Amino acid sequence: MTDAMTESGYDVLTIGNAIVDILARAEDDLIVRLGLSKGMMRLIDAEEADRLYAMIGPAIEASGGSAGNTAAGIASFGGRAAYIGKIAVDQLGTIFRHDITALGVHFPTSPLEGGAPTARSTILITPDGERTMNTYLGACQALTEADIDEPTVAASAITYLEGYLWDPPAAKAAFRKAAAVAHAHGRKVAITLSDSFCVDRWRAEFLELMRSGTVDIVFANESEAKALYQTADVATAVEAMRADVALAVVTLGEEGALAIRGAETRSVPAYPVEKVEDLTGAGDQFAAGFLVGLTRGRTLEEAARLGCLAATEVIGHIGPRPSRSLKALAAETGLPL
Amino acid sequence: MTDAMTESGYDVLTIGNAIVDILARAEDDLIVRLGLSKGMMRLIDAEEADRLYAMIGPAIEASGGSAGNTAAGIASFGGRAAYIGKIAVDQLGTIFRHDITALGVHFPTSPLEGGAPTARSTILITPDGERTMNTYLGACQALTEADIDEPTVAASAITYLEGYLWDPPAAKAAFRKAAAVAHAHGRKVAITLSDSFCVDRWRAEFLELMRSGTVDIVFANESEAKALYQTADVATAVEAMRADVALAVVTLGEEGALAIRGAETRSVPAYPVEKVEDLTGAGDQFAAGFLVGLTRGRTLEEAARLGCLAATEVIGHIGPRPSRSLKALAAETGLPL
Repeated sequence: MTDAMTESGYDVLTIGNAIVDILARAEDDLIVRLGLSKGMMRLIDAEEADRLYAMIGPAIEASGGSAGNTAAGIASFGGRAAYIGKIAVDQLGTIFRHDITALGVHFPTSPLEGGAPTARSTILITPDGERTMNTYLGACQALTEADIDEPTVAASAITYLEGYLWDPPAAKAAFRKAAAVAHAHGRKVAITLSDSFCVDRWRAEFLELMRSGTVDIVFANESEAKALYQTADVATAVEAMRADVALAVVTLGEEGALAIRGAETRSVPAYPVEKVEDLTGAGDQFAAGFLVGLTRGRTLEEAARLGCLAATEVIGHIGPRPSRSLKALAAETGLPL
Repeated sequence: MTDAMTESGYDVLTIGNAIVDILARAEDDLIVRLGLSKGMMRLIDAEEADRLYAMIGPAIEASGGSAGNTAAGIASFGGRAAYIGKIAVDQLGTIFRHDITALGVHFPTSPLEGGAPTARSTILITPDGERTMNTYLGACQALTEADIDEPTVAASAITYLEGYLWDPPAAKAAFRKAAAVAHAHGRKVAITLSDSFCVDRWRAEFLELMRSGTVDIVFANESEAKALYQTADVATAVEAMRADVALAVVTLGEEGALAIRGAETRSVPAYPVEKVEDLTGAGDQFAAGFLVGLTRGRTLEEAARLGCLAATEVIGHIGPRPSRSLKALAAETGLPL
C-alpha cells in the first residue's frame, strides 16, 4: 500500500452522507420518552426532524457525517484527503462545504439545486457522553453514480466508504462504481460498518462486499462485528472477519482496538480519557488515524495507535471533528507522521 | 424594582440584533494579517463576510447576539425572559428561533421574508480566549418600531437594550419606542454600551439617553466606560456615570465588577477561572446575572456576584450562552434564586 500511496494524489478519499450535526445535551429520560435506542443512529423524515427539534433544548451546529469527519481527521493529521458527498445549495450546505474545504480537503461533488435541503442529524448527548443520532438524509438521497469523480478515485491510495451509504437508494450504485474504479487503478477499498442497526439492515450485502473482494479493509466496532455475524461473542466475529476480508479493524472502546490481517492479530490499548464529553465521531476519527498510518507505511500496531489517539482527542470535547491539530498531537505522543 | 417585578409577566425583555455566531479558532497572526482590532466587533457587508469566511478554518455555529445571549442567560437562571430581534426565514433563522424558544424565552418578533438573510457574526477566537467579531447584520437592518411588541414591553420589569442596536438605522426608533412604552408602564430601561468602537460611533447619543433619563441602568466594561467619557482613567469615568445615570454597572474583567447607584458603590471580585476558552458572551452573561438578581430583589452586591458567576461559566467553554443551568450553578455557589 506504501507504493500506491507514493504515486497517489490523495492518501484517502472518503465517500458518505454529507450532514450538519445539531448537537444538544439531553438527560437520559428524554431518550426514553422519545423511545430512542441510546447510542444508535435512526433515519427520520423532514416532519419527524422538525417534531424532534421542537422537543429538544438549545443546540450547537457543526459539520459532521461519518466519512466527512474521517476526511477532516485525515487532513488534521497532515494527510491528503478528498471527500465525495451531496449537500444542497443552502446555508447548512455552505457551512458543510466551508468546514471541509477549509481543512484542505478536495471536495469535487456538485451541490443539489432545487431539491431537498442539506442533511442534518439531531444528536442528543447524554451525561455519559453517549450520542443518539436522528438523521434526516435530505440532499444525500440524491447522491448517484454521476457524483463519483473518477479522477479523484483513481488518484486516491484508499477509497473509504461508510456503510450508511447503503441507506439512500442511489448511493449503492455509486458505492459499487467507486470500488470498481479504485480497483481498476490498483487502489484499495475500505468500508466502515457504521452502526449495528445499519448492519442489521444490510448484513447480507455487507458480507457479499467482503467475500467478493469488493472491499479490502473493514472497520467495525464490537457491536457491529457481533451484529454482522449474529453472535454474542466478539472472538467468534473476529475470526469470521479474518476469513472474510483481507484486513479487519475492530474497535473495542475502552479496551482499545484489534487489527487482523491473515494470521496476524495486533492489539493496542486505548489512551486514558479524563472525561468523555461526547462520543460523536470517535469511530470516524479512529478510522482517520488508522488510514493515515496505513498510507504512510506504518505497522498495523502503529496505525491502530494513531486511530486510538484521534478517537481520544475527539471524545474529550463536543463535536465530531478534531478541535486541535492531530499532526501535532501525534508528534507530542511519540507517533510523528 | 421588586414591586414592579412581582406584578410583571417577564423579569426582563431584551432587544437586540438576532445573530448566529460562526466560531472559529485563529492564531494571532491571522488577526494581524486581516487588519482586525483584537477583541472588537466590526460591521461588514455580505461580500466581506463571504471573503472572510473563505479565509478562516473550520467553525462551529451557535446562536448569539448580545441581547439574545442575555435572554438565554436569564432563562438559564430560571428567570422569565422575552426577546425582540429580527431573523429571516432561513436555516440560520430557524436555528436562532429554536435555541431561544427552547429555553422558554418569549420571542414575539415576526421574521423577515424575502429580504436579507439572518445575521451572522464570524468570530475569531485566539489562543488567549479573546474574540474578534465580524458581523454582517442582514435581516437585523429590518428591525423597526413595528417590531416593538407593546404588551411584552409593558409586562417586563426591565427592558434591556444593546448599544449595537444603534447601528441598524431603523432600530434607533424602535429602541426609543421601547423605552417610552416601558416608562409609561412604570418599568425600568437598561442599556449595555456593547463595545468601545460602538461607543465611539454613538457617544453623544448614548450620553443623551443617560442624561435625559431614557435609560435607568447602564452596563459598560472598562474600555467602554473610558471611551464614553474619552478618559484614560476608569475612576473618572465611574464618577461621571454616577452623575449621569441612576444605576451604572462597570465590569472589570479579572478585577470583578462595580455597581454605582447615587452615593453607593459596591465592588465584587471575579470568580477564579482555570482557563479562558472563549470570552464570547462574557459581558452578556454578566448582565443576565445582574438583571436576574435585581428583579429578584437582591442587593447590588449579590446581583453583581450573580453576574460574575454567569460570566465565569461562559468563558470556560466555546460559545456565547451557558452550557449548564445557571440556576443550579447559583445554588451550588451559595447564591440561590
